[in-house]
Amino acid sequence: MDLAKQDEHYMREALKEARKALEKDEVPIGAVIVCDGLVIARAYNYTEHLNDVTAHAEMQAITSAANNLGGKYLQECTLYVTIEPCVMCAGALFWAQIGRIVYGAGDPKRGFSKIGLHLLHPRTKISKGILEEECSQILTNFFEGKRREGK
Amino acid sequence: MDLAKQDEHYMREALKEARKALEKDEVPIGAVIVCDGLVIARAYNYTEHLNDVTAHAEMQAITSAANNLGGKYLQECTLYVTIEPCVMCAGALFWAQIGRIVYGAGDPKRGFSKIGLHLLHPRTKISKGILEEECSQILTNFFEGKRREGK
Repeated sequence: MDLAKQDEHYMREALKEARKALEKDEVPIGAVIVCDGLVIARAYNYTEHLNDVTAHAEMQAITSAANNLGGKYLQECTLYVTIEPCVMCAGALFWAQIGRIVYGAGDPKRGFSKIGLHLLHPRTKISKGILEEECSQILTNFFEGKRREGK
Repeated sequence: MDLAKQDEHYMREALKEARKALEKDEVPIGAVIVCDGLVIARAYNYTEHLNDVTAHAEMQAITSAANNLGGKYLQECTLYVTIEPCVMCAGALFWAQIGRIVYGAGDPKRGFSKIGLHLLHPRTKISKGILEEECSQILTNFFEGKRREGK
């Protein structure tokens, strides 16, 4: 499988996680972490149910991946996440020294890149725009639905 | 109790937490969150034992305080932390909309203020330098000890 196909494949897995968030009426963002071709962590945004601002998909995925590997550094891992990580998640990804980040749609308001790429570890590679429309659409639909409900 | 005395009082509580981290051979950083004069969360850095880069004192304190209050926003709360928060923790404090942050010693290398105060919520107030020397010393001693051990 070439890299583009691989990225699409794993982003579909991240989208599956986002859909799980949607089913629970959470802002639908999903993430998976892949190491040596294996998905070692899956997570979705769960901030509302847990009443916890730190429960972003990426944060939970980092904790879960480190637990799976038995070490806190994720240099050999790739994070796939449907939406661009925020500053908090970028800070966590820095500490984890994640090897690569692949995100679907950008987040011009709260995405880390608004502050600057220097928030990440210098060795972290970044790709973006993978299944961008699908990743963005699920979020747009969610917020439109909320507006219709008057929330 | 005037504000300066109050800040010193709660920073001593945060220092107690830092000492608990030290006893467990963790980088000694401690935090408490105070709401209406009550300490509603206590935490210390626990990244090594948990193998989890997200287990900073502040992150655990945010989760614990929100759990205590039954809501994820901490606008009426003050975080006391012995060392300046990093980018990840500043990002989390932004989402929590914390009312006030009081930190002991600055962290010129990894502190959020190196990036900029705009990482925090615009309504968050900041004070620093409370028991600065004590907060800094416990960390310096820890790293000097590690160097002597050749770690």
